Amino acid sequence: MNNLRLQRVRHFMVEARIDHLLLSSPDAIYYLLDVSFNPGERMLVLSITQSETKLIISALFPIQRDLGVEVIHFNDSQNPIALLAGDIRDGITVGIDKNWPSHFLLQLMSLKKEVHYMEGSLCIDHARLCKDDEEIKRMREASKINDQVISEIIEIIKTEGKKGNLTERALQKKVVEINEKLGVHEMSFTPTICFGANGAQPHHDTDDTILTENQAIVIDIGGRANGYCSDMTRSLYFGTPSEKYKMVYELVLKANLAAIEAVKPGVPLSEIDAAARRVISDAGYGEYFTHRTGHGIGIMVHEFPDVSDQSKSICQEGMIFSIEPGIYLLDAFGVRIEDLVCVTSSGCEVLNAYPKALISIM
Amino acid sequence: MNNLRLQRVRHFMVEARIDHLLLSSPDAIYYLLDVSFNPGERMLVLSITQSETKLIISALFPIQRDLGVEVIHFNDSQNPIALLAGDIRDGITVGIDKNWPSHFLLQLMSLKKEVHYMEGSLCIDHARLCKDDEEIKRMREASKINDQVISEIIEIIKTEGKKGNLTERALQKKVVEINEKLGVHEMSFTPTICFGANGAQPHHDTDDTILTENQAIVIDIGGRANGYCSDMTRSLYFGTPSEKYKMVYELVLKANLAAIEAVKPGVPLSEIDAAARRVISDAGYGEYFTHRTGHGIGIMVHEFPDVSDQSKSICQEGMIFSIEPGIYLLDAFGVRIEDLVCVTSSGCEVLNAYPKALISIM
Repeated sequence: MNNLRLQRVRHFMVEARIDHLLLSSPDAIYYLLDVSFNPGERMLVLSITQSETKLIISALFPIQRDLGVEVIHFNDSQNPIALLAGDIRDGITVGIDKNWPSHFLLQLMSLKKEVHYMEGSLCIDHARLCKDDEEIKRMREASKINDQVISEIIEIIKTEGKKGNLTERALQKKVVEINEKLGVHEMSFTPTICFGANGAQPHHDTDDTILTENQAIVIDIGGRANGYCSDMTRSLYFGTPSEKYKMVYELVLKANLAAIEAVKPGVPLSEIDAAARRVISDAGYGEYFTHRTGHGIGIMVHEFPDVSDQSKSICQEGMIFSIEPGIYLLDAFGVRIEDLVCVTSSGCEVLNAYPKALISIM
Repeated sequence: MNNLRLQRVRHFMVEARIDHLLLSSPDAIYYLLDVSFNPGERMLVLSITQSETKLIISALFPIQRDLGVEVIHFNDSQNPIALLAGDIRDGITVGIDKNWPSHFLLQLMSLKKEVHYMEGSLCIDHARLCKDDEEIKRMREASKINDQVISEIIEIIKTEGKKGNLTERALQKKVVEINEKLGVHEMSFTPTICFGANGAQPHHDTDDTILTENQAIVIDIGGRANGYCSDMTRSLYFGTPSEKYKMVYELVLKANLAAIEAVKPGVPLSEIDAAARRVISDAGYGEYFTHRTGHGIGIMVHEFPDVSDQSKSICQEGMIFSIEPGIYLLDAFGVRIEDLVCVTSSGCEVLNAYPKALISIM
């Protein structure tokens, strides 16, 4: 597994004319070596050439098993950048991890001047663009757990909502507790719970707003299970929905389904964005769909590709991304319906199974 | 307040011969502007010259109040690095934030070649080395809350410990809950609770170990209140301590007090480290005191200065750092006693008041 992934990275290094790649992002190293490090301020680099792979890491992080690559430990009295500089040949192009803290790069540049430096993360981002079987399996499992979480959360709204003291924050806490009960100890992102007009802000910070009758609800949640992220949104109504809410809900659902229908290998991702946007624009609500249709997801909650009108990517088998159209009516309510999809040879597999028909809780 | 802090940064820019400083770390910007941003992947830069200060920030982050500096907003279709490059004069030295993601720096370097780049964070790190009155006030308040938390935690051990099912993780959760009750919603670091031999690892990851009779306990906790971090450690005994435990405890306490006694303006910080280390080494336990004596603390839990034998810093009024000697006996127990101290004109003020005499819970 690791070797195939490393081979993909090396392929993209050749394409990008990068001779030596220095990766530092923990998620990139997790992808290639299936091991998580949190090095804090200390340098951590996976150094990749066409012939060698070396992990350069502080001796404070003992390596417990064979990672299939050479491990070079340094202690606090050694300068790891000098170690690195000594290993880089003159005259080559060195690819740098996009997130490497600048002080490491500036020090390397002063110790090793005779090379060309460029951003190198595209090699790993491209390698991760299409998920392999093991990754798809983990993504399925993570979304299955997320389905269970949302189902329990909606049950809680049914039983607790009428008591008149259910706050967004209390429900947010429940999301974390249910995940923990299901063995998920890390959220993909801070769970977003919006009551009423709060849902009209796509990035509302969950607060102490209390659920009251005749309010729309937006729930956007995800957890990281076995290293891979889930992410889904369901919108529902507490009380009797107005005709307008029902109409907007059906519109967003139609956009969600149209985009899912458009997914298959060979289709530009901008076309998938357009498929959702067209439904909403044709009904006159285009200006209220204020964000892209979706984003890639995997080890990180936001990865390549980008599902937007700016996207240059073409749909390929194994890509996993979100489909999450929304309509946001300021001071009134918001509706967003989000699923993750995995591109198959002929279309896509929707990773979320929780129903999408309008739920109104009386 | 802000102007004085900016003035200090400008003073250190002159000393370091940095003409133009680009700061990106949220804690640096918080220090200078008293406002917190979490820009995610988007560029955020506070651009400082001797005559101007500009905050360059995505339009997604509206600025609610006058920050006393010019604010330049960019939208997602603009390249903020081009904005930045256009603002930098030729031939000067540009200081770069140590944590700026490399992809920003590489892009700036390719757009703006005629300048000299160097790490610039020392200008702000030096400015923050001595806390001002407002900072000292917030640090005092944070530590006062931390005293309260540890007192409640020790009460919980007294009442719950004998039930035979108190785990490290449960106590860790209590630390978070008590902090929340006291209005502290962010921890300085993950609370560390160690039972028995787990305490012999200075960085033990809190787990499901159950407290049993005749075990040593180490509690290392802190929260961020009003933007400033607390951090303290207390060690105690559940059961009847052995003579050896009592001897080691008294030794660590003596080292803690000796280091605190050594703190006053003009003393090298390496001397303060030596004061603690000497007590422990003279008793033959030098090899079991495996880390530095302390670290600076403020907005971040680890700041300058470093209280170690490698430190080149001299104690100055307004510095705040930890004094935390420890002895770690593998497979047996650990003892660490940590307080924060603030350097005064003639010595220091200890910010933690929770008693340090050996507590044994019968």
